Amino acid sequence: MSTIVDVPESSKLIDNGRTDPRAGGWKKGVGIIDFILRLGAIASALGAAATMATSDETLPFFTQFFQFEASYDSFSTFQFFVITMSFVGGYLVLSLPFSIVTIIRPHAAGPRIFLIILDTVFLALATSSAAAATAIVYLAHNGNQDSNWLAICNQFGDFCQQISGAVVASFVAVFLFVLLIVMSAVALRNH
Amino acid sequence: MSTIVDVPESSKLIDNGRTDPRAGGWKKGVGIIDFILRLGAIASALGAAATMATSDETLPFFTQFFQFEASYDSFSTFQFFVITMSFVGGYLVLSLPFSIVTIIRPHAAGPRIFLIILDTVFLALATSSAAAATAIVYLAHNGNQDSNWLAICNQFGDFCQQISGAVVASFVAVFLFVLLIVMSAVALRNH
Repeated sequence: MSTIVDVPESSKLIDNGRTDPRAGGWKKGVGIIDFILRLGAIASALGAAATMATSDETLPFFTQFFQFEASYDSFSTFQFFVITMSFVGGYLVLSLPFSIVTIIRPHAAGPRIFLIILDTVFLALATSSAAAATAIVYLAHNGNQDSNWLAICNQFGDFCQQISGAVVASFVAVFLFVLLIVMSAVALRNH
Repeated sequence: MSTIVDVPESSKLIDNGRTDPRAGGWKKGVGIIDFILRLGAIASALGAAATMATSDETLPFFTQFFQFEASYDSFSTFQFFVITMSFVGGYLVLSLPFSIVTIIRPHAAGPRIFLIILDTVFLALATSSAAAATAIVYLAHNGNQDSNWLAICNQFGDFCQQISGAVVASFVAVFLFVLLIVMSAVALRNH
């Protein structure tokens, strides 16, 4: 009994694209948008990593003993940010072939599920580094009175602008990740 | 032609559970694990929110003008944490009926996709608040020399232990969320 059920199911995966081209075209379109969104996410993730990694400001005055310098090295959160965003960008580049497979074979569930699972893991990674960096950027801008942490953005204006830009770029990548997962999940429907 | 293709597909969704009980049982098991993991995630999310919200320490000495007090109110990141984790806990409670639907109807794709989409959004929310709180907890423990932010955990030991516990609980919730999404995506396979 089970073989009778299985045979039309497996042949359906191949034939459906021919018998009902409209459904196949819809899923192909989702695959193409997926690919384009991935390119955007690569740009924002690597842009965020590069912007953060090049943030470095040395103040034009110094005392006898040391010079005032702010760089992303000073904060372990920002180091984490640079490493994580590079990882995410690298993953997204490696995921492009799988995205192409979903365009060529819009009815294959395997590549989509593979992408959903990895996208979820890297969404968590990207979100964590973006949010942690945001918390520090907020402190750098506003400080915290109760714990006596002073805002450093008054002194290091350019540094602060650069790390803020990196955080914004990383949140663009996070938003695109959420879109990618939602789109893949919807495309799995009616399979 | 398209109606000929559609009819066996829609009837398959209802009949498959009867004709191939093993496949239905497997998906039912995933639904049950999904429900149990959701209960665990509710406990850790609400536990994290409660632990953070009750963190409050007043030092036993004070000057003429003010008393030294640390509470989650002092840090906007921790306020965000409490609000977000309560939201996440509330969402998880509301998602339980949909999880029960996936147990009763293991072959229905709709509830699973609905859960994947909302889980992804709330995963991003939970991860962002957990990571932001972690960045501040790290600063409270270690401080940052370059920006002259001193570690406050030497003074506020109990406060620090409590916020660290809340962060750990929130990461348990994040981990369970990732598991939930991965499981739902795998259960959508072979649909």
